[in-house]
Amino acid sequence: MGGDYAPLNNILGALDAIKEDNSIDITLIGNREEILKTLAKEKIELDENLIHHASQTIEMDDSPVSAIKSKPDSSIVVGAKLIKEKKIDAFVSPGNTGAVMAASTLIMGRIKGVSRPTIGATFPTSEGKFCLVFDAGASVDSKPQHLFEYAVLGTIFAKEIYGIKNPSVGLLSVGEEETKGNELVFSTYQLLKNSNLNFIGNVEGRDILNGKADIVVCDGFVGNILLKFGESVLTFLRTKIKDYANEGLLNKIKALVTKGVLKKSLADMDYQKYGGVPLLGVNGISIIGHGSSTPLAIKNMILRAREMHQKNLIQKFEEAIKEYGNSI
Amino acid sequence: MGGDYAPLNNILGALDAIKEDNSIDITLIGNREEILKTLAKEKIELDENLIHHASQTIEMDDSPVSAIKSKPDSSIVVGAKLIKEKKIDAFVSPGNTGAVMAASTLIMGRIKGVSRPTIGATFPTSEGKFCLVFDAGASVDSKPQHLFEYAVLGTIFAKEIYGIKNPSVGLLSVGEEETKGNELVFSTYQLLKNSNLNFIGNVEGRDILNGKADIVVCDGFVGNILLKFGESVLTFLRTKIKDYANEGLLNKIKALVTKGVLKKSLADMDYQKYGGVPLLGVNGISIIGHGSSTPLAIKNMILRAREMHQKNLIQKFEEAIKEYGNSI
Repeated sequence: MGGDYAPLNNILGALDAIKEDNSIDITLIGNREEILKTLAKEKIELDENLIHHASQTIEMDDSPVSAIKSKPDSSIVVGAKLIKEKKIDAFVSPGNTGAVMAASTLIMGRIKGVSRPTIGATFPTSEGKFCLVFDAGASVDSKPQHLFEYAVLGTIFAKEIYGIKNPSVGLLSVGEEETKGNELVFSTYQLLKNSNLNFIGNVEGRDILNGKADIVVCDGFVGNILLKFGESVLTFLRTKIKDYANEGLLNKIKALVTKGVLKKSLADMDYQKYGGVPLLGVNGISIIGHGSSTPLAIKNMILRAREMHQKNLIQKFEEAIKEYGNSI
Repeated sequence: MGGDYAPLNNILGALDAIKEDNSIDITLIGNREEILKTLAKEKIELDENLIHHASQTIEMDDSPVSAIKSKPDSSIVVGAKLIKEKKIDAFVSPGNTGAVMAASTLIMGRIKGVSRPTIGATFPTSEGKFCLVFDAGASVDSKPQHLFEYAVLGTIFAKEIYGIKNPSVGLLSVGEEETKGNELVFSTYQLLKNSNLNFIGNVEGRDILNGKADIVVCDGFVGNILLKFGESVLTFLRTKIKDYANEGLLNKIKALVTKGVLKKSLADMDYQKYGGVPLLGVNGISIIGHGSSTPLAIKNMILRAREMHQKNLIQKFEEAIKEYGNSI
C-alpha cells in the first residue's frame, strides 16, 4: 500500500518481476479489497492467494515511529513481521521511508555487531560506474564506529551486488589530507586506516561523481542532504531547459534535441534503474523505494531483493562485521 | 600572485575593472619583477605605481596557517595588512583559499560580535534567482551561535548586494519539520525562531536549487561538500555529453546543440559571474576567488568588492550582529 501510486504501480511492478523470473514467489501485502478493486478496474488477472491482507495503511506524512505503533496491521509493519517470522525472504516498499526504516529496525532487529542500520544512495560516476554513499539518511549525529560499520556493510554490498573485487572506501571530508575534516572524520579516519578495508583516505564533494571511490561513508545528515540535492539537479535542469524552450520555435527544437541527449547520457541517474535504496544492517532484506516509484522501479527493487537473498547477504554482512571488527 | 594563472589573469581582470569604472583605485600586490615581465611579454601598458611589491608567494598547496607565518611578505599577507592599515579598502585574491581566510581572519581581525567568519556559496535557482549558502567551508564543527551569526551576515549581504528586501533564511536539515535534524539543527532552530530574522524553518537538500530560501545556513562541513558536489555536476555533464558525442556523427551534432542550450540555460551556474566568494565577518572586505579564475572572474570580484565598500557593508554587519544578537 506504500507509495504515491499504490497499489497499482506496486502490483504492476510485481507482475513484471514475475514475468522476468517466474521463480519469484510474490506476496502482495495490503488491503485485500482495495487490491481486488484495482485489479478489476485495470483488468489485471492475478492469483488472489498472492494477497496477504493488511487492514491499515501508513500514509506518507505519518510520523514513522508512532505510526508503526498505532498501525500494527499496516502493510509496512506486517511486511517486517513476515520477515521476522521467516514467512517471506525479503521486503520491498515505496512507502513512508521513516516507517520502513523504523519497522525494519525495530521488528526485524539488527544484525549481530551492527550498531545502526544504514541506507545507501547510488550516484552515477563520469566513468559509467557507481558510487555508493552510506549513510544517506538512516540516522544523524553518528559516531566513528557507525561510519566504520557502514564501510564494512558497503564493502560487502559492492562486492556481491556490483561485482567489485576489492571496493575502495573513501571518507567524505572537506579536503583530501588526513588533517582536513571535523572531529567525526578525524576519529573515523583512524578506524578505517587501521582496518583491512580498502580505505583510500578522505574524498571531497567533487569526488562522488568523478568516481574516486566505490563507497563513500559519511554521517546520515550529510548523505541525506547530498542525495536530495543530487536528485534536485535533474529537476533544475528540466526547468531551465523548459524556460529556454519557451523563447521561440528554434529554441523549442534545440531544447527537444537537448532533452533527448540528456535522457540518453544521464540514464545512469535514473533512480528507477536501482529501484530503491537497501537498508543495510537490519536482520532481513529490506529495500525502500521512492514515493513516486514506477512499475519499473518496483520491479527492479524486487529483482534486487531476490539477488540479495540468493547471495545470502545477511549472513555475509554478519561475518564481515565480525571479521573486520576484529581487524581494527 | 594568487591563482593558477597569476599574475596575468589578475592583471587583465584588474584592467577590465578599471575600464568598467575608472574611479576604482587598483593596487596590484605581488612580485614587481614578475609583474613587469608579464606586462612586457603581453605588451600591456600599466602605470608601475599601481604595483605594491610583495617578495613572496603562497602556493596553492602550501599549508595555510604556517604559510602566512613563514611568508610574511607574500601578496596574501601583505594584502590583509594593507586592509588593517587602512591603505586599501578591499582585498580580492584567487589564491590559496585557506591562506586568504587565515590571513584575513588573523590580520584584519573579526567584526565585533562575530565568533567565526564565514564564506558564502552562490547557487542558482530554477526561478532564475540565487540561493546563498553559509557556511561553505570556512570552519567545521560549528555551534548554534555560529550558524545564527551566518544567518545575520547573510541577511545583510542578500539585502545590500542582491537587493532582496526581507531575505528568507532556511536552516539546512534532513526534513522540513522542526523535529527533523541533528543536535546542531535543533538548537539553531530555536535561536533563529526567536530572532527577528525572516526565518522560514528547515529546508532540505532539494530546496537549494528550487529557491525556497534566499539564504541557507549550515555547518561548513556540509556547505563545503555541497559546494564541491555542485561544481562537479557541470564536469559530470560535460563528460557524459562528450561520451555521447563520440558515438557517431549524428550524436556529435546533437551534442553540439545540447552544449549550446546548456551553456545558455545554465549561465547562472558560471562561477565567473560572481567572481568569488566573500569572506564575511572579518573586519575588512575580503573576497576569495576560484584558483582557475579568468580575467572576467577577477573583474567581477573587484566590482563586487567595490560595491561592498561603497555600501559600507562592514559597518552594516557590525550593526546587524548587535541588533539581531539582542533580539534572540
